[in-house]
Amino acid sequence: MKTRAAVAWQAGQSLTIEEVDLAGPQAGEVLVEIKATGICHTDYYTLSGADPEGLFPAILGHEGAGVVVETGANVKSLKPGDHVIPLYTPECRECKFCLSRKTNLCQAIRTTQGRGLMPDSTSRFSLHGKPILHYMGTSTFSNFIVVPEIALAKIRNDAPFDKVCYIGCGVTTGIGAVVFTAKVEAGANIAVFGLGGIGLNVIQGARMVGADRIIGIDINPEREPLAREFGMTDFLNPNEVDDVVNAIVQMTGGGVDYSFECTGHTGVMRQALECTHKGWGRSIIIGVAAAGAEINTRPFQLVTGRKWEGSAFGGARGRSDVPRIVDWYMQGKIKIDPLITHTLKLEDINEGFSLMKTGKSIRAVIVY
Amino acid sequence: MKTRAAVAWQAGQSLTIEEVDLAGPQAGEVLVEIKATGICHTDYYTLSGADPEGLFPAILGHEGAGVVVETGANVKSLKPGDHVIPLYTPECRECKFCLSRKTNLCQAIRTTQGRGLMPDSTSRFSLHGKPILHYMGTSTFSNFIVVPEIALAKIRNDAPFDKVCYIGCGVTTGIGAVVFTAKVEAGANIAVFGLGGIGLNVIQGARMVGADRIIGIDINPEREPLAREFGMTDFLNPNEVDDVVNAIVQMTGGGVDYSFECTGHTGVMRQALECTHKGWGRSIIIGVAAAGAEINTRPFQLVTGRKWEGSAFGGARGRSDVPRIVDWYMQGKIKIDPLITHTLKLEDINEGFSLMKTGKSIRAVIVY
Repeated sequence: MKTRAAVAWQAGQSLTIEEVDLAGPQAGEVLVEIKATGICHTDYYTLSGADPEGLFPAILGHEGAGVVVETGANVKSLKPGDHVIPLYTPECRECKFCLSRKTNLCQAIRTTQGRGLMPDSTSRFSLHGKPILHYMGTSTFSNFIVVPEIALAKIRNDAPFDKVCYIGCGVTTGIGAVVFTAKVEAGANIAVFGLGGIGLNVIQGARMVGADRIIGIDINPEREPLAREFGMTDFLNPNEVDDVVNAIVQMTGGGVDYSFECTGHTGVMRQALECTHKGWGRSIIIGVAAAGAEINTRPFQLVTGRKWEGSAFGGARGRSDVPRIVDWYMQGKIKIDPLITHTLKLEDINEGFSLMKTGKSIRAVIVY
Repeated sequence: MKTRAAVAWQAGQSLTIEEVDLAGPQAGEVLVEIKATGICHTDYYTLSGADPEGLFPAILGHEGAGVVVETGANVKSLKPGDHVIPLYTPECRECKFCLSRKTNLCQAIRTTQGRGLMPDSTSRFSLHGKPILHYMGTSTFSNFIVVPEIALAKIRNDAPFDKVCYIGCGVTTGIGAVVFTAKVEAGANIAVFGLGGIGLNVIQGARMVGADRIIGIDINPEREPLAREFGMTDFLNPNEVDDVVNAIVQMTGGGVDYSFECTGHTGVMRQALECTHKGWGRSIIIGVAAAGAEINTRPFQLVTGRKWEGSAFGGARGRSDVPRIVDWYMQGKIKIDPLITHTLKLEDINEGFSLMKTGKSIRAVIVY
């Protein structure tokens, strides 16, 4: 079949809209009509050429929602008409990682996914007979995609695609880091470094679980009102204090119980660790650092009880946890609508990237 | 009263044996006759002058065992004749840290202890009318000491002083890191970097809780036989492999579940982190790094599920946990005797330091 898609031909170039050929689902695979997709910084990281593992030509996009159109042989958990969110971190429930019960980082199809291919080491996308690569196992900048059954979360049918698509990455990454990775408890004090989309979702996750002080840190004062609406109790602008770490320690009588780093800057990662409380502080790295960048601190910080950790996809097991987050949205426990600042057609996708790069959007969503 | 003690007059000098004046216990304090004390690297670290917080003149020593001689006013949990181990990490059970249930780092008397003083900001030791400082709140290189009640663990009366004194620091630091900090579970694979006294205690702690693979890493092959006796299943000499991290990952099919750093070298701390398993590996820093030294790694190591942590005094709550470790020794669950390689008189304490510095002793113990 044919599908409309935005193709990234090479690093640093704008996307072009093409009618691409899409092969049907093989055994264990599912054909999905994507109804909406967010544009995320990770797509730009790859498109820009900064990602050393970026491959071209490819169809980017990893934050979508849609409907099952057709299932390949042996697909048991999904049927046409089911609403789904594609998962760049799948959940096979059979690999060493899934069975460990200690991580969400399913490795069942990691190798081929990293090469832009389906599990049988081929691509379902092509144009004029030449293959175009998949991206993060999802490629939601295509109207129709083929993905493995293990990389689809089945969600309720009454959730709006143009909002819950954001749960495919940003919402889950932020809320999950609080709920699944850190397991923040009611009454805890937390600090959030960086008040972009991820940071705002960390904030509302912390509010949902009953945190006391929720301190947001950003050099952009324009972020403050929305962050307060999401649950931030205190705002700190690093440009207005001598020492961010000391300011947070003073505000909280010794440091926060948990901190979350959402900027990707290794210097900020150190601040996020060192502002946590002696004895039990835990700092969770969410942001993606530049290739080769390193974090550092004195080991004394750890020997005196702080823990340095990280979170990928919010520690969420996609098929199990993403449907729950959709429920939380539908129940009003979390907000998404104020974060979707722009809605665009696929033809305007390059404008969506511009809005993100210039900081004008929290999240721009493409609606097919 | 008078007490015999080894006094450290200034950094870099040998200790001298003196008849020191000791004032009696104030309210909340206890007079203890020390029966035996180990000589630990931390004593040498301070004596050498490398410790930026080292103060002189002082009576060093922090790994002792003895008998209560007299109690000051308001002391309720101890009476003359009780056998005790002094605690450089006390357990007041009333401060924010003790009540958090998340850390063993009681802060009740930290400030005065760090200044070499009792909680009322004075010293009980003096000579010719001039004060001599306490050290780590213990000063077990004195035959008699005065310590706060909250810094004494009451132990059973049938435990031999010249063995269980080692529980005052090294044994608890190693075994506790496994049992209290990491909470290693049966079947886990672990790596131990550095097979000195701490590393050997980590190994026997891991054996006690039922670990599967216990990999010991040391550049000194002479450590291998004793480490195997304590439970090590595999020995790795970094000088005999290209890449220690890769060797451990290969040996364990992906990395160890827990690693323990017992050398104090920041480069080894990085190896210890990076040899743990993607998704759930936890690396515990025990070793004390040189002043100002920093650890570093790529944040990707943490984002993909590894955790970097530390342990002080094995995460043990001294008054609660030290008596249990004494029981484990008396029950034969752990060994101490093979680690006490030398027993000396107080007059020979400088020889004890020499044995430690040259690596000839695992632990030298002074018996009064």
